Amino acid sequence: MPGQDDDIRHGEVIVAMPEPYDAGLWFIGRIRTPWTGRWQCPRQGDPLAGPDCRIELDPRWLPALTGLEPDRPIQLLYWMDAARRDLVLQRPRGRTEPVGTFSLRSPARPNPIASSVVQLLAIDGPVLTVRGLDCLDGTPLLDIKPTGFGHGTGWHITN
Amino acid sequence: MPGQDDDIRHGEVIVAMPEPYDAGLWFIGRIRTPWTGRWQCPRQGDPLAGPDCRIELDPRWLPALTGLEPDRPIQLLYWMDAARRDLVLQRPRGRTEPVGTFSLRSPARPNPIASSVVQLLAIDGPVLTVRGLDCLDGTPLLDIKPTGFGHGTGWHITN
Repeated sequence: MPGQDDDIRHGEVIVAMPEPYDAGLWFIGRIRTPWTGRWQCPRQGDPLAGPDCRIELDPRWLPALTGLEPDRPIQLLYWMDAARRDLVLQRPRGRTEPVGTFSLRSPARPNPIASSVVQLLAIDGPVLTVRGLDCLDGTPLLDIKPTGFGHGTGWHITN
Repeated sequence: MPGQDDDIRHGEVIVAMPEPYDAGLWFIGRIRTPWTGRWQCPRQGDPLAGPDCRIELDPRWLPALTGLEPDRPIQLLYWMDAARRDLVLQRPRGRTEPVGTFSLRSPARPNPIASSVVQLLAIDGPVLTVRGLDCLDGTPLLDIKPTGFGHGTGWHITN
């Protein structure tokens, strides 16, 4: 019920969640970052000045890295498993009015999938070094994709 | 087993898929496009000259649209439910050598989540009109996000 949950802020609204799930995800690896608490994470990753982070891919998927080259941006999808999924109106820190989940890039959303474009620095077997992440250490990885179709390399737009 | 499946091309490699799933998704709506067959779909959506497409959001999530404004790009995540998920090496049409799934934006991938940036043209209750999609009619919608943090509006980079 709206307003009856200790975790939500004044003005925030939650809805009953559907059951059951419509599709399933596999975690294909884990993301290693310096951030172990939610409030340590930067608001947005910095592919230029941010710290180097590590992607540990499940070796099952190792052949799928074939053809991926370092020194270019890649898109990562990952699963923000600490986020609640039933908030439809939420009030980000520092804002007075609640706004709709789909007008925010908050982790709290029905399907908490994050999309970030990061700089791929190195590939060593199933371990990738990247720069530009903003997520908690241990975050489950969902996908690795090249960016666009050769249109450019402007990661700053896609986070 | 690699090479023993009628659906895969010479040189393509599949792996045994993990069980069970690690997380679950809800379909939050459906995408309506003019394309009912896989080969009708454009290779990439065109937010300038592409046809208008419709997003039909499940009314459960309607309040989550609050604050979303038309005439700007938004990022959509959707579920390519017709794609196989076990290909690690694949050979796109017109290419002679197979390459790794993570070096392609092919629908066939462990978690077939598509990410596209489209132009939001109109919002009418739970129905959004957008331009720039490339997916089959009826594709399940996973998420709607604003693009970036005010860095720009260059959708061409993020598809």
